[in-house]
Amino acid sequence: MVQGASRGIGLEFVKQLLEKNDKGHVVATCRNPDRATGLVDLKDKFAERLNIVPLDLTIESTIEASAKFIREKYGSLNLLINASGILSIPNVLQPETTLSKVERSSLMLSYEVNAVGPILAIKHMWPLLKAGGGFGAERDVAVVANLSARVGSIGDNHLGGWHSYRSSKAALNQLTKNVSVEFTRRRDPIICILLHPGTVDTDLSKPFQRNVPEGKLFTKEFSVQKLLSIINNAKSHDNGKFFRLGWPGNPLVIGYSTELKSHFSYHATRICPNSLIIN
Amino acid sequence: MVQGASRGIGLEFVKQLLEKNDKGHVVATCRNPDRATGLVDLKDKFAERLNIVPLDLTIESTIEASAKFIREKYGSLNLLINASGILSIPNVLQPETTLSKVERSSLMLSYEVNAVGPILAIKHMWPLLKAGGGFGAERDVAVVANLSARVGSIGDNHLGGWHSYRSSKAALNQLTKNVSVEFTRRRDPIICILLHPGTVDTDLSKPFQRNVPEGKLFTKEFSVQKLLSIINNAKSHDNGKFFRLGWPGNPLVIGYSTELKSHFSYHATRICPNSLIIN
Repeated sequence: MVQGASRGIGLEFVKQLLEKNDKGHVVATCRNPDRATGLVDLKDKFAERLNIVPLDLTIESTIEASAKFIREKYGSLNLLINASGILSIPNVLQPETTLSKVERSSLMLSYEVNAVGPILAIKHMWPLLKAGGGFGAERDVAVVANLSARVGSIGDNHLGGWHSYRSSKAALNQLTKNVSVEFTRRRDPIICILLHPGTVDTDLSKPFQRNVPEGKLFTKEFSVQKLLSIINNAKSHDNGKFFRLGWPGNPLVIGYSTELKSHFSYHATRICPNSLIIN
Repeated sequence: MVQGASRGIGLEFVKQLLEKNDKGHVVATCRNPDRATGLVDLKDKFAERLNIVPLDLTIESTIEASAKFIREKYGSLNLLINASGILSIPNVLQPETTLSKVERSSLMLSYEVNAVGPILAIKHMWPLLKAGGGFGAERDVAVVANLSARVGSIGDNHLGGWHSYRSSKAALNQLTKNVSVEFTRRRDPIICILLHPGTVDTDLSKPFQRNVPEGKLFTKEFSVQKLLSIINNAKSHDNGKFFRLGWPGNPLVIGYSTELKSHFSYHATRICPNSLIIN
């Protein structure tokens, strides 16, 4: 299941999942299936294996309805990608450049879509993921992958700004950690991970691409290809980790973590979100 | 100004600020001044120096009205303590013990009160704090102190649960970091810090005190006394730090931080939230 699949990274996930596998079925959700032309085009090509289901993260009943659809049609799920996310909406939501531009409505909307929605999706898909585990995949576990962002990191925040987006993603990171802890405690065959896709050439990043150093803007094809390889190779011990795509040519660094010094140092290797930098 | 002053830690801050200083004035805000019996009692004793002002964090106009009151009466502010916070409300908000109990309404309400409200308070008090700096205090800077919680830390989250509270406090930590970065960039005479008061014997913690090891529950008198000493001794370089009270007898550990290993290690000492453990 790819939640938030009408365009951008979500749509590319659907495309590659269908193209790289000649058996798997994909449930693609979005608010308005009729207007999701990218999905409709894919439906022409993969009629049997693609289901387009309406889901609005801000209306919980639509999440429940999607779970019901999957339960009745497939009985289980082995992958949930939460790809939706908002950063800016013309005349509604503008990333803040200063505290004096912070608005209650922007903070609340960003939180609702970027943090609350993905967690509700996981809540309702949980029984299906438990039933699915790694069935039909090369993995041992079902994977929940939440699209986060490096700017959601508190420790890595040296620039400030983007209050609504940053705080909603920090909250998503915390909620992901919470979920991962519970999956481990219950010994569910599910892991929950965070993905930073890099800055990808999509509608979301378009207004901000001029700040991206040359050659460091990813195509969605490239980013999703790398993210899918992270998902496909995920193991139980990756539960709760934060994987981020680095720029091509960067060294592969495995398992750096937010580490607390002093008397917490013995926790270092267990503290999440960890990150893998993949090039 | 103490925001969220009707009871618990907020009320104790007001009391100690008035008692330990025979000149300073305090603006105490709460939703319903008429019902804030603790504040009314203090008003009898400190009529001249205590102002009780209605402020509901979820109604921005009341924050603006409080700023107007302070601007007209004093023209500046040298301390803002955001002491309000919600964890549980009978029949409305219950700290979650599992993902299956996570509700949209709980997540949204906690975020609104614990993260959005304090930031809006800072936004509207900002010009007053800039005018105030450390004036009338022994500090060089005005202090914004946000009451956070250790369970808001992502790296320190090993138990899971309390989704609404944890995610709202993680978001508050991120927003505090954002604000502190901007204060530094603008060279404002203001710092913004996070305080973890320990588990304090208040209404907020009452339903959960049985999980606190013996001797590790703080009285509000003790906790606030230590927190005030942190605030009074705060320096410019404490901007963005996360101070937490440890248990009596614990060593004083200065400046541990969330540190990213590998190629981020050069950022270690600058990465926030830092913490000081005060005993």
